This record gives sequence, C-alpha cells and structure tokens, in this order.
Amino acid sequence: MTIALIAEEAGVSVPTVSKVINGRPEVAPGTRQRVERLLHKHGYQRRVSQSDGPVGLIDLVFAEIESPWAMEIVRGAETAAREVGAGTVLSVLHTHAGPGRDWLERIAARRTDGVVIVASRLSAGLQDQLNARSMPFVVVDPEGEPAPHVASVGATNWNGGLAATRHLLELGHRRIGVIGGPADMLCSRARIDGYRAALETAGVAVAPELIRHGDFLVDSGHDHGHGLLSLADPPTAIFAGSDLQAFGVFEAARQRGLRVPEDLSVVGFDDLPLARSAWPPLTTVRQPLQDMAALATRMVLAIGRGDHSQARRVELATELVVRESTTSPRP
Amino acid sequence: MTIALIAEEAGVSVPTVSKVINGRPEVAPGTRQRVERLLHKHGYQRRVSQSDGPVGLIDLVFAEIESPWAMEIVRGAETAAREVGAGTVLSVLHTHAGPGRDWLERIAARRTDGVVIVASRLSAGLQDQLNARSMPFVVVDPEGEPAPHVASVGATNWNGGLAATRHLLELGHRRIGVIGGPADMLCSRARIDGYRAALETAGVAVAPELIRHGDFLVDSGHDHGHGLLSLADPPTAIFAGSDLQAFGVFEAARQRGLRVPEDLSVVGFDDLPLARSAWPPLTTVRQPLQDMAALATRMVLAIGRGDHSQARRVELATELVVRESTTSPRP
Repeated sequence: MTIALIAEEAGVSVPTVSKVINGRPEVAPGTRQRVERLLHKHGYQRRVSQSDGPVGLIDLVFAEIESPWAMEIVRGAETAAREVGAGTVLSVLHTHAGPGRDWLERIAARRTDGVVIVASRLSAGLQDQLNARSMPFVVVDPEGEPAPHVASVGATNWNGGLAATRHLLELGHRRIGVIGGPADMLCSRARIDGYRAALETAGVAVAPELIRHGDFLVDSGHDHGHGLLSLADPPTAIFAGSDLQAFGVFEAARQRGLRVPEDLSVVGFDDLPLARSAWPPLTTVRQPLQDMAALATRMVLAIGRGDHSQARRVELATELVVRESTTSPRP
Repeated sequence: MTIALIAEEAGVSVPTVSKVINGRPEVAPGTRQRVERLLHKHGYQRRVSQSDGPVGLIDLVFAEIESPWAMEIVRGAETAAREVGAGTVLSVLHTHAGPGRDWLERIAARRTDGVVIVASRLSAGLQDQLNARSMPFVVVDPEGEPAPHVASVGATNWNGGLAATRHLLELGHRRIGVIGGPADMLCSRARIDGYRAALETAGVAVAPELIRHGDFLVDSGHDHGHGLLSLADPPTAIFAGSDLQAFGVFEAARQRGLRVPEDLSVVGFDDLPLARSAWPPLTTVRQPLQDMAALATRMVLAIGRGDHSQARRVELATELVVRESTTSPRP
C-alpha cells in the first residue's frame, strides 16, 4: 500500500498524506481523520529508515498520579525500561480522555519507543492517531472497553471482588456494602460484579443502596463510608474497592465511634505498601501493580521491535491478603 | 580556552579531548578524569551548534522511590516541565551515590535539557563529569554538603526540627525522643540539630539515648519507636523525623498498649497527603515538596538557557501543622 494510493482514496494530495504521517499540524482536522482512518484500514506502517533505531525512551502516561498506586506503576515500568537501557518519560494528563493531539505531536517530534497508557479511555480516534504515527502502545487498567486488537494489561479484578466478598460471607456477614471507583472504569465494574456474584452464589440478595461509586481516593471512602453507615439498616462490613477508600472508611467508622473490625469489617483492594502499616493492618486484595507495569513495558517494546508474538490482552492474578481489619459480625 | 590548549596541558591528543567532551567510551579512566578536571578548571563550555536547541526532556534522578514522598517530587517536577512543553524522564538508581558513568553516557547520547538529582550524594568527580558534558543540574535535598557553586533546593529543615520540638516543649513534654534519617543526609542532620536547639534554648538537657537514626521509612519508625519506648525512662513524646516513621511509631505504641496522643505524642515531618488521613491525624512539619521540585526544574531549565541570574541555593519554608497526634503529657 503506497502513500499515493491512500491519497487517491482519501481524495487529497500525496504531500497531505505525508504531513499526516509525520504529524505535521497544517492539515484540516476532518482531512487528517479521514487519512488516519485509511492508513489504519490498510495497515500502513511508516517505513523505518536507517536512523530510526530505538531512541531509548518509553512514555508512561497517567491520567492522575495522586495515589501511591501510581508510584507502584512507575516503579514497575522504570525497572523494565532500565533493563533495556531505556529511560521512562512520565506524563500526567489531568484527564482520563487519554493523550491529546498536542501531546502526540510533541512525542512524535522527539520520537518514542512505545507508549504505556494508564487508567485512561482510549477512543477509536486516539488509536488511529497512535497507529498513524507508528507509536506502539499498551494500555494498563483501561477505563472503558478497548477494541479487541488493543494490547492491554490488567488484574483479575472480578476474581478479586469475588474473593473479598466471599471472605466476608464466610465470616458470617450478610449486610455487606461496596464502594467502587468511577462507574466507567472497567476495573471498578469488574470488582463490583465479583461482589454481586459472590452474594448471588451464596443466596444473599443484592441491595442497591449498599453499592456506591467513588474515585478510589481517601475522601470518597470517607464520604461513602458515612453514607453507608448512616443507613437505617447499615452494613456490618464494607468492601472498599481500593486501599485508600478503605482508609477513608476507617476514618468514617472512628468518627461514628465504631471500632474496626469489632463493629465494622473493612476490605481494601490493591495492597499498597501502606496497607500493612495501617491500623488495624488492612485485609485487602493484592494486585501485582509493579508486575503489571513491567509487563506492559516489555510488551510495548516487543511490539516496537515488530514482535507481535506475545499475548495482547493479559490479566495478572489478584490474591486475598487477610490481616486484621476483618472479623465475624457481632452476634 | 580551546580544546588544543586543554589537550596540551593534559598531555593528550586533541581527538582524545573531543572524545571526553562527547562522552565517547574509548578513553582510559585516568585520562578522562584528568581532562574533565581541566575542562572544569578552565570553565570550558561545549559550543552550542544550531542543532543543539532544547530537546524537551528533563531528567529526574532518584536514589529510591519507595516512599510517597517521591511521588510529591515527581508531581512538582512534571508540572514545571510540562509548563514548557518538556517531558520528565525518571531514573531510579538504587544507590545514593548519584548517577554513574553508564547513566551519564546514555543520557549524553540522547541529550537532556537538565538533570534534577534528588536526595543523593554529589561527588566532585560526578560534578566534573556533568560539567564536562555540559549537562545543567540542580540537586534537591542533597545527601552530603554540595560544593558552594552547586545549585540546590531544600527546605528549612533546621527550623522545622526546631518548630516540632518547641511545640512538644510548649505542651509540657521534657522527655522527647527523636528519630532522624540516615546520619549522612544533610536534611536529617538539620532536623536533629533543630531538635537540639529547641531543647537547649528551653534549658532541657539533650539525652543521647533519645536520639536515633532510621531511613525515613515505616519500619525504621516502628523499630526505633520500640527501642525508645523500652528505655527505663521512656519519652512521653517522639519527633519522628518523617511522616512514614511517625506511622511506624504509631504501630509500635499500639503494640505496647499505648494510646496516641494520650500516652505518647508523635510529630512527623513532610505532611504527605496521608498524614491528614492517619489515625489520629498526624501533627507534622509540612515541607512544600511539589514546590521544591518545581523550583529545581525551573532552575535547571534557566541554567540550561545560560541564565545564571537566579539564586543558586534555595531553602523553602517549612511549617508546623498541628493535628491530633500531640497533647500534654499525663500529669
């Protein structure tokens, strides 16, 4: 497939197609999109010239890095990049919509060996833009449902939600609250679906008022914790969806004079380094964040080398870690 | 000062000097060092060619990134770099000795607009190597005492140690323990010296057995907390030197059946986002980590532009934040 044929099909000049391929700004948005679609449709690969060896840079792109969660991802990616002598460039977009055109232009200009995109949405348009610029990319913990050909790394969130809730059921809890993350994040939905599955297979009715959505940070655990504990028939246990939300629930419980775990059992999700130092030490679902980020980095490097042999969609196992924030409910 | 004169003084050929300047590996270590010393002594500046504009990359170099402390530094640097459209490349060296020759060669090969070095030692040899490669650099929280011409950003650690200890003295404590960081970190020494100054100006004797050195992480707070609390005459308050060490002291106190703050007052240092969510919420000394990193990034960019007008050694103010982990000792 030559540039000339793409230009003909798009009804534009050859130089215009070249401009789109090289990420030049002087192309109308509609034209650019049409050309990018065609480039992608025909599987166009930018010809790699002699000077186009690896540049020794991996781009790691976050929506936000407020949580210690992000630090674990950084540690894993940096370790895997360093193994091949590459540097890790960190970008914080302050939006879950993924990198915008400005960002793409800048990175295309200085070149990258691959882009690891964390916890973001990945529109079809963005995928086309990345492909048109021949930027290999892998998504960690995608926000929405990425297209089947998009390489991604996650954790077995559904199994984690199931394990956390089963643990509480086995302790004798029947009134179990759950606080998820944003409703449009796949990992959050999977955790809540695992919670539902555990209740349903145990024959316990799912009560809609016990299901809340936060943003995975401490304050939303605190606020939804108060919300759940002020119900007429409050839960005796809360699966908090993230460790930080669990710390927020701890705080809400204390403010209401409830002791954890005697009056309220709490389960987190993540197993951040701080979970073990919390008081009480937090029962949580461990996800191997460093391993996930390292794997995504190795995948994107492989894709950049033209090696498409690896699995494209991977979920690493989660594991329940029982500490001291859970016990049987009061009789 | 021309390369020819440097070559003559060093007793080597002109191509050898060029190789040192361009970071080529094929020069004997002794020769390289001699040439680097001379380049530095004569204030040699690599001539900037047309193609040597900014590359849009700032290097942020950590010894370790285990603590959420590091995340605050990353956030500040990334924000300041993004303001000028630059990416932030993160390196974790797993040593406090600063970047080694391999790292320098790799970064010289791909070029950088400046290097921000965090919490590391900065030997004269390393400074020579950075200067010889015309890499602007700024140190955040230097480990040892950097040379007077080295640009650095810190916090007023001494004042912070003074304020923390005065707060405990004003509450009526007289037996006050302190846990610093590594003895060779300047910021740690300054905090402990501030602690001493507060005791001495209050006419309270400094007891050597009450002064400990950890590594700023949770476990060392836990271990030294137990050490201090098992003394025949234990302290009624502990200035923990970092928030993470304060969390470790919390844990040690609980394991001994002591309540914070009723039986033991605890003060941290840093004011990480988690300090406010701790239980009890942690009284601590806030250091503006994001501002420190942002300032260091702007300084290194200015130095790279040839703008040496800014202050070279800056300390940003710390501030005592009183929350609920401190109170008067039992009568």
